[in-house]
Amino acid sequence: GRAASKSTTTTEISSFAGRRVTIQDFRGKTLVSIREYYEKDGKQLPSSKGISLTAEQWSSFSNAIPKIEEAIRKMNQG
Amino acid sequence: GRAASKSTTTTEISSFAGRRVTIQDFRGKTLVSIREYYEKDGKQLPSSKGISLTAEQWSSFSNAIPKIEEAIRKMNQG
Repeated sequence: GRAASKSTTTTEISSFAGRRVTIQDFRGKTLVSIREYYEKDGKQLPSSKGISLTAEQWSSFSNAIPKIEEAIRKMNQG
Repeated sequence: GRAASKSTTTTEISSFAGRRVTIQDFRGKTLVSIREYYEKDGKQLPSSKGISLTAEQWSSFSNAIPKIEEAIRKMNQG
């Protein structure tokens, strides 16, 4: 097959507190990652502390977002 | 101090594909976790594959959600 079909493109969407949210086209599969990065030799490298979700898993996760927001609100009141 | 102030309550918000979204009151600090779980001796245990966000980090993350959704849409069209 074409070499391009096996390439991986990582795009940074957001970063905060040493964590990065990235989206990847990993061999034709979309992956959303939330991951801690560390510095080595002046480069920022992804650590094992994080999680990667396929587009389908992201969809399941995003359905839960209103419940997460509500739980945070309740906890901050409690 | 009171023993209660050091307790941890974990509430499951959602689960999908072996991953769980939980919210914890960890010593008075709210933590949102997205984490893979594994089974051992009939129990579901949290693995190291995952990430925990404080309420403040969750807020930074949630600001990026529309950009994540847009990036997934674009990738699926590309």
